[in-house]
Amino acid sequence: MRRLEVKTRERTQFVDITAQVREVVSDENIVSGLCVVFCPHTTAGLTINENADPSVCRDILAHLEGLVPQSRKFTHSEGNSDAHIKASMMGSSLNVIIENKKLVLGTWQGIYFCEFDGPRQRKIYLKIIKD
Amino acid sequence: MRRLEVKTRERTQFVDITAQVREVVSDENIVSGLCVVFCPHTTAGLTINENADPSVCRDILAHLEGLVPQSRKFTHSEGNSDAHIKASMMGSSLNVIIENKKLVLGTWQGIYFCEFDGPRQRKIYLKIIKD
Amino acid sequence: MRRLEVKTRERTQFVDITAQVREVVSDENIVSGLCVVFCPHTTAGLTINENADPSVCRDILAHLEGLVPQSRKFTHSEGNSDAHIKASMMGSSLNVIIENKKLVLGTWQGIYFCEFDGPRQRKIYLKIIKD
Repeated sequence: MRRLEVKTRERTQFVDITAQVREVVSDENIVSGLCVVFCPHTTAGLTINENADPSVCRDILAHLEGLVPQSRKFTHSEGNSDAHIKASMMGSSLNVIIENKKLVLGTWQGIYFCEFDGPRQRKIYLKIIKD
Repeated sequence: MRRLEVKTRERTQFVDITAQVREVVSDENIVSGLCVVFCPHTTAGLTINENADPSVCRDILAHLEGLVPQSRKFTHSEGNSDAHIKASMMGSSLNVIIENKKLVLGTWQGIYFCEFDGPRQRKIYLKIIKD
Repeated sequence: MRRLEVKTRERTQFVDITAQVREVVSDENIVSGLCVVFCPHTTAGLTINENADPSVCRDILAHLEGLVPQSRKFTHSEGNSDAHIKASMMGSSLNVIIENKKLVLGTWQGIYFCEFDGPRQRKIYLKIIKD
């Protein structure tokens, strides 16, 4: 298992971790298999989405905020239930295929760590499975 | 492939299955790999979220009910379309990394079976992949 | 890695790809393992849901349109931010267990390609991992 560290700077923020994931895959020197990306936090998630125009990530974050407002009355006393809900909506893990020693992503795809209760220092776990 | 059984007691309910998944992983005696958890039902899902304060799961369920109310008019005649929608929003499978013969979860993470159309007797499938 | 092609015919549409995925798994002749299904597009996703009554897929699509309307004002200039958001809500990959050379799906489960910005010619990648 390999680890990445991410420092987030806003309460809600998408951090592009594609380059860091590629580096681990390259370093592991696996010809073909699967890279599983896992978020060990309950107020953050992972998603794959557009890496070209940053306004897409901003639109996703703003729309999620509209669907699950922080200000809404929740029972959980820490006041961050919105972050837990958004985390489950995005999901805690991703599968990315490895072929010819490289991550297989679509032309416009990037891998994003989704911070919903920052700013914080966060961890991401990677597991490479050979086929 | 291994199977778990879960008996749900409410129409919508999160059931913590972490201990049962850990037991299967321990029983399989795999040093390192991946545990894939799969829900074979279309009105239930799986998620990873906070295992400390049960109010988090209640907040998630209540907020999903607000976003996808059961009472809303749907075309599907069984009257449980809300459950199908919530199931797709949570997802039908999870990846959990196995390292040193143990499930790798964050400090506050638990694995939840998400019932959206109970109460029912439900199944969960587990597949362990060695790396 | 194997590839599927899907031609979508509407802006938003669920396409049942279960038979095509089964065919690849059968062709690969793997007794036991995992089939990872991956969507390389950022305005489309993948989900597993009911394959019996087509009104379920219509209800999911209509409800997602209500939660994330195309008409809403977004900053992304291409005007398809709703499709990016829906894609992240459904997710870009699926795990399906292979046992006795067959995909393990629940009785009512089908695998769906979720088009959110069609009509288009789309690709799906499949990776089979032996255990």
